[in-house]
Amino acid sequence: MGQFNAIVGQSGGPTCAINATLSGVIRACLESKKINRLYGMKNGIEGLMKEDIVDLFSFFEDEKSLDALELTPASALGTCRLRLPDIGGDESRYEKIVEVLKKNDIHIFFYIGGNDSMDTVDKLSQYVKKNALDILVIGVPKTIDNDLVVTDHTPGYGSACKYIATTLKEIIRDCAVYTQKAVTIVEIMGRDSGWLTASASLCALDGKGVDLIYFPERAFDDDKFISDVKRVLDDHNDVVVAISEGIRYSDGEYVCHNNSVDVFGNRQLCGSATALASLVKGRLGCKTRAIELNVPQRCASHLCSATDIAESVMIGSHAVKLALEGRSGIVPVFVRQDGEYKIGFSCANAHDIANKVKFIPDNFIGEDECSATEECIKYVLPLIQGERFPEFKNGLPVQLVIK
Amino acid sequence: MGQFNAIVGQSGGPTCAINATLSGVIRACLESKKINRLYGMKNGIEGLMKEDIVDLFSFFEDEKSLDALELTPASALGTCRLRLPDIGGDESRYEKIVEVLKKNDIHIFFYIGGNDSMDTVDKLSQYVKKNALDILVIGVPKTIDNDLVVTDHTPGYGSACKYIATTLKEIIRDCAVYTQKAVTIVEIMGRDSGWLTASASLCALDGKGVDLIYFPERAFDDDKFISDVKRVLDDHNDVVVAISEGIRYSDGEYVCHNNSVDVFGNRQLCGSATALASLVKGRLGCKTRAIELNVPQRCASHLCSATDIAESVMIGSHAVKLALEGRSGIVPVFVRQDGEYKIGFSCANAHDIANKVKFIPDNFIGEDECSATEECIKYVLPLIQGERFPEFKNGLPVQLVIK
Repeated sequence: MGQFNAIVGQSGGPTCAINATLSGVIRACLESKKINRLYGMKNGIEGLMKEDIVDLFSFFEDEKSLDALELTPASALGTCRLRLPDIGGDESRYEKIVEVLKKNDIHIFFYIGGNDSMDTVDKLSQYVKKNALDILVIGVPKTIDNDLVVTDHTPGYGSACKYIATTLKEIIRDCAVYTQKAVTIVEIMGRDSGWLTASASLCALDGKGVDLIYFPERAFDDDKFISDVKRVLDDHNDVVVAISEGIRYSDGEYVCHNNSVDVFGNRQLCGSATALASLVKGRLGCKTRAIELNVPQRCASHLCSATDIAESVMIGSHAVKLALEGRSGIVPVFVRQDGEYKIGFSCANAHDIANKVKFIPDNFIGEDECSATEECIKYVLPLIQGERFPEFKNGLPVQLVIK
Repeated sequence: MGQFNAIVGQSGGPTCAINATLSGVIRACLESKKINRLYGMKNGIEGLMKEDIVDLFSFFEDEKSLDALELTPASALGTCRLRLPDIGGDESRYEKIVEVLKKNDIHIFFYIGGNDSMDTVDKLSQYVKKNALDILVIGVPKTIDNDLVVTDHTPGYGSACKYIATTLKEIIRDCAVYTQKAVTIVEIMGRDSGWLTASASLCALDGKGVDLIYFPERAFDDDKFISDVKRVLDDHNDVVVAISEGIRYSDGEYVCHNNSVDVFGNRQLCGSATALASLVKGRLGCKTRAIELNVPQRCASHLCSATDIAESVMIGSHAVKLALEGRSGIVPVFVRQDGEYKIGFSCANAHDIANKVKFIPDNFIGEDECSATEECIKYVLPLIQGERFPEFKNGLPVQLVIK
C-alpha cells in the first residue's frame, strides 16, 4: 500500500474519551508511516460535505498536544447527528462525500461514534463497495451509555461511571450530616439502558452505599417505590436513591414531566428525580431533594478513568490497524478475558452494531428490583480503575481546542 | 493554664473544607500539649445537649487519618441548624450545654460554621460571661457562599469556585461540539449573594468563557435577558449562561416558577435555569438546556483547591491559638495582603459576624449587568490555585467517616 490520505470524524453525543480515541487514530497513523496526511472533518459528515476539514498531522506535532487532547472532553472535531438515507434512494449526500474524499486523495474514512453513527459507517461502506470505490470505511465505537452490542463495553463508559460513583459517594456524605429524615433522589443518564445507573452499585464497596437503585430495564411502580423508601427510612434517616433518567411505568410512560425529541427520534428526558421527590414528599411528608447529574456525566475530564482513557486510545489505534489490513465496513470492539481483568480486541461488522441497543443483563438487577448484584459490581469495577488528571494551569484544567 | 479538655463541633451547611478546619483544630490541640482531651460533638449543639460526643485524640492518631479527613467532604461530626434563643429568655438549652461541658471538664468550645453558627458562638459566649463560667467559646468560619462579613473570604469557598469553574469549562466544551443554535443555562448556588456565581468569570482566562453571567445583586429582567442572549447568538451559536439560583425580579420574586401543583397540593418548584430555558425556547425558538449544579458544588472533594484546604487547616489551628491566649466570643478571619497573594490572620467578635450577609462589591459586576469585571477575577483566582487530590482506592476516593 503506497502513500495516501485518511480522514477521521466524530459523531453523536460527546464523551470524556472521544478525544482519546481520536488521539489513538492520530498516533497510529503517524507511526504507520503509510499515511501521507490525516485530515479531521469538522462536525462529522455535515462538515465533510462542505469540505470543512483540517490537517491533523500539522496540528498535533508533539506528545504534549496529544496528551492534552486525550484529557479534553467533548468532540474536539465537533459533532453532528446527521443520518444518511438508505442506499438506493437519494444518493446526493453520498456523492458529495465521495467527491470531497476523492478531491483530497483520501482512501480511509474513520468515524468515531455510537450506534447511530455506525449506521453511517455501514451505509457508506455499502455505497463505496457498490460503486467499487477505493475507499475503506471504519467505525470506532464511542458512548457513555455502553449500549453498543458485541463489544464488552464502550470507550467513555468507564470515565462516566467513575464520575457518577465518585459524585454519589460525595452526595452520600453530604446527606449523612443531618439528623432529620430526608430522601435524596439522584438522576443518572441512560435513555433506555441501565449501564450508567449500574455504577451506583460501586459506592457500597467502601462505606455507606446508595440505598435503592432503579434501572430502566424494570417497570417502575410508584407504590412499590414508596414501600421501598419506607423500609429504608425505618432503618436510617438519610436515604439516597439512584434512578435512571429512563425509568418508565408498566404502560410505557416515562416517569418525568417534560420531554421532546431529537432528530434521531430520541426523547430528551428530564425531571424524573423531581417527579419522584414530589411523590415522596406527598406520601411520606419528609424532606426530599432531587439532584440531576446532567451533562457533567459526559464531560467531567478532570476525573477520568485511566483505564478508560488508555483503552480508548488503543481502540483508535486498532481501527487504523484494521484499515491498513484493507478491512472496511467494520468496527474494532473490546473483548474481556476471563479471570483477572485484561482487555483484548476483535472486530464486528458495522451492520451488526448499527441501530441496536444492549440492555443490562438480568443478573445485574437484584430480585427486589431496587438493587444491583455482585455480578454488576464485578463488571463495572475494573473499568473505573486508575486516575489520570489533566494538566492544570492557573487552577483550571488545560483543554486542547482545534480551531 | 493547666491540663483541661476542649470540644469542637460543626454546624450549618457542609462544605469540602469543613473537615480540613476540623483537622486544623485537632492538629493544633495535639501539638499544644495543653489539652488533655479533645472531644467532638455529633450534630453540633443538638448532639452536645444529648452528650453525644466522641474522643477525637484517640480517633485521629496518625497523619494518614488527618490527611484523609482533610479531603473528605461534608461535616464528619454531622451538623445541625439549631439556633439558641436570646439570652434572658428560656435558658434551658444553655444550662444543658454547660452541664455537659462541666461534666466532661471541657473549658474550650470550638464551633465551625457560617453566619448562623456565629450567632450560637456569640450567644453562648455572652451566657458564660454573664454567669462567670470558666469556658471559652471560639467560632471558626465556614461557608461555600463566602458571605461572612469581615473576613476576606471563607473556608470552603475556593474549592467550590474551583469545582464550578472547572465544570463550566467542561460544559463549554460540550456545548461547542454542535452547529445548531443552543442556549445552555447553568444554575449556581448562592441564595442572596453572587460570590459563587463570580467564579464563572474565570473560564474566559483560557479559551472560550461563559457568555453571560447574572448576579443576584442585580434585579433580573426577562426582556433584557432575551436581548442579551440574542446579541450573543448573533455572534455564535453555542451560548452558555451562568446564573445565581437567587436571581430575582425587581418586585422581589425569585426567577423560579411554580409550574404545577401536584395531587397533594404541593407546589412544584422548578429551578431558575429551567424557568429561563423555557423562556428562551418560547421567545427565540432555539434548543435550550438547563443544568443545575446542585449539591456537588459543596461536596466535590475529588477536586479541592489546595489553597482552600491549606487555609482551612490553618484557620482551625489559629482558632486554637486564640483559645490558648484566653480569648472568647471571637472568630479568626482571613486578611489578604496587597500585592502578590498572601494570606494573614486577624480576629473579629462573633457578634459582628453573626446574622450578617456580605454581598459582592459593585465593581465586580460589569456595567452591562451580565458580566464580571477584572476586579472580580483578580479576587477569586488566587483562591482556586493548586490541586490536592484525595487518595483513591479501587477507583474511588477514600473518605474518613467518624462513627
